[in-house]
Amino acid sequence: MSKLCNTTPRQDGFRMPGEFEKKDGCWLGWPSRSDVWRNGGKPVQKVWVELATAIATSESVTVAVGHDQYLNARGMLPDHIRVVEMSTNDAWFRDMGAMFLVNDATKEVRGLDWGFNAWGGLEGGLYFPWDKDDLAAAKMCEIERLDRYRGPMITEGGGLQCDGEGTLLTTESVILNPNRNPGMTKAEAEQIFSDYMRIDKVLWLPRGCKFDETDGHIDDLACFVGPAELLLSWTNDENDPQFEVYAEAFEILSNATDAKGRRLTIHKIHQPSPAVWTEEEAAGVDVTPDATQRLAGYKVMGSYINYYVGNSVVVVPEFDDPYDQPAQELLSQLFPDRQVIGLKNAREILLGGGNIACVTQPQYAAG
Amino acid sequence: MSKLCNTTPRQDGFRMPGEFEKKDGCWLGWPSRSDVWRNGGKPVQKVWVELATAIATSESVTVAVGHDQYLNARGMLPDHIRVVEMSTNDAWFRDMGAMFLVNDATKEVRGLDWGFNAWGGLEGGLYFPWDKDDLAAAKMCEIERLDRYRGPMITEGGGLQCDGEGTLLTTESVILNPNRNPGMTKAEAEQIFSDYMRIDKVLWLPRGCKFDETDGHIDDLACFVGPAELLLSWTNDENDPQFEVYAEAFEILSNATDAKGRRLTIHKIHQPSPAVWTEEEAAGVDVTPDATQRLAGYKVMGSYINYYVGNSVVVVPEFDDPYDQPAQELLSQLFPDRQVIGLKNAREILLGGGNIACVTQPQYAAG
Repeated sequence: MSKLCNTTPRQDGFRMPGEFEKKDGCWLGWPSRSDVWRNGGKPVQKVWVELATAIATSESVTVAVGHDQYLNARGMLPDHIRVVEMSTNDAWFRDMGAMFLVNDATKEVRGLDWGFNAWGGLEGGLYFPWDKDDLAAAKMCEIERLDRYRGPMITEGGGLQCDGEGTLLTTESVILNPNRNPGMTKAEAEQIFSDYMRIDKVLWLPRGCKFDETDGHIDDLACFVGPAELLLSWTNDENDPQFEVYAEAFEILSNATDAKGRRLTIHKIHQPSPAVWTEEEAAGVDVTPDATQRLAGYKVMGSYINYYVGNSVVVVPEFDDPYDQPAQELLSQLFPDRQVIGLKNAREILLGGGNIACVTQPQYAAG
Repeated sequence: MSKLCNTTPRQDGFRMPGEFEKKDGCWLGWPSRSDVWRNGGKPVQKVWVELATAIATSESVTVAVGHDQYLNARGMLPDHIRVVEMSTNDAWFRDMGAMFLVNDATKEVRGLDWGFNAWGGLEGGLYFPWDKDDLAAAKMCEIERLDRYRGPMITEGGGLQCDGEGTLLTTESVILNPNRNPGMTKAEAEQIFSDYMRIDKVLWLPRGCKFDETDGHIDDLACFVGPAELLLSWTNDENDPQFEVYAEAFEILSNATDAKGRRLTIHKIHQPSPAVWTEEEAAGVDVTPDATQRLAGYKVMGSYINYYVGNSVVVVPEFDDPYDQPAQELLSQLFPDRQVIGLKNAREILLGGGNIACVTQPQYAAG
């Protein structure tokens, strides 16, 4: 039903849209593993319901949940949110789920299913095993009756930022990391992006943010808000550990042109403070050999870039931080036709190592 | 996404189609529990693949399978069959799955989700627990984005035979059994069928066949092949234990009229011999307190009535029985526009207590 294509998306006329393009829906998982999420996932599940509900004001939302949490998730989520059974190892659908490609001529949508190894496999990956996560993309395509490509690379959606017009923004520290694709060269990676996402130009940044557990996903650092227009996380504090990362990215991107030869407009958005695990929070997490242990004092990078942009909303994390409000004001200016919704208690998601973008997978509409 | 309706299908203009009506697809589960299916389900799974493949020549087929068997099922089934993850207690989708109602005016389809207790719950039910089976109907509707009615009765699709024009054929031994609906009267049951399936007349038979573990589902005894036209399982051997059941049904149905006042044409189809569990077969089944134990010598009723009728096929069980061929010839006459396909080794399904009709759930097309 969901055919595995032996051709490439470029051959078949498919491209990867920009995340600001039109969507048919959005996919999320359901957080519950007690060695990642504190207190059995109960605090973060409440935030998840708020997140799914906010997105559902804009487009159809599907939450995929394993059999053991099915009734709880179905009970907690409003009726108009679709819940489907799907076993996973955790809930990072941007990274493990299918990406959706569109064919503008035929108005078709197909899935793109990269290899997934939990951000590094046995060399620094964040949990073990990741077998069920790696099946999620195929299962999504089966449910939606969409044909599927298997991308010949281990990578994650959160590491890939597209403008929808042939430009990809990504980081070397992720794509070329030996814990993903040992021995792969930049040229080989670029060929795969060309074949599978119809990318004509890759803008490489050397690295992502510090205290980002993914080896530096782009989705905490910078994203396209439209063609030739970027949002970049920022601080003016030269003593901040992220300063040099931001400055380096700004320098590179200021001098870059995109696939169409355009210079890039760069909007700076001030970062929030990182989250630091408290004693109480750390005490609520099971200690197992299967998941990265986050002790009291462990620091996780936060970012307003890690938002979800829907057809009519932008849902952005709130951290009880003085920069929450300025971030929402800037997003309102950049997306004047969309309602900007702050997600309270987004810290609960951040404690698990990511944020709103990381846990949402947009399903693009074809035409 | 799949709204639970508080109204009734009759109020909303929905009716239950006859099984010979047009379908959009067909749902099956996946047999694997080792205390029901011999040799870990491996023999029956091969038959299942043949069955799903035969139906898929006629309409889209979806196989629902729990996470533990997902990769095995996906690997065994051809690519053009959709596989979705769904945990169940066993694989009897006719009985536990959603029935599909149609609205001829609006061209809508909705699900009808009866209560399910594994054919009798703690009073003679066939396995324990049945909690996941009872969720299957809702999960099917969520996947298909169809609204759903919860029928206020415990019953199974295999116990309900409709003509699509207001007539229901069923058995008292199932519907009025205290192990399903204790204290329910015939009038109360008829009101529910009227409200939820738009039934204007119920043709009650007192009982189903002997050696039928469901307390006598109609789908081993008789079925509609069209409006006012029935197929009835039969033997001329007055010493056969089923003879009196068949004769009784023939007597009642010969004197009945349907919801539109029409007399019924009754075609007799000669039964196969029952299956008797061999020593070798019985030795391949786990003995647990959770499932009915079927020992060597245990007899299961077979029937050619227990077929699947698709848009362009009729898939009927074969038992290496002298009556296999005459049954297929009769079905070819009754369904001249459909290809009749005999399913070899259908004994493997029958050993589990049912057959092709029991494990398939047609999803009707609206108009």
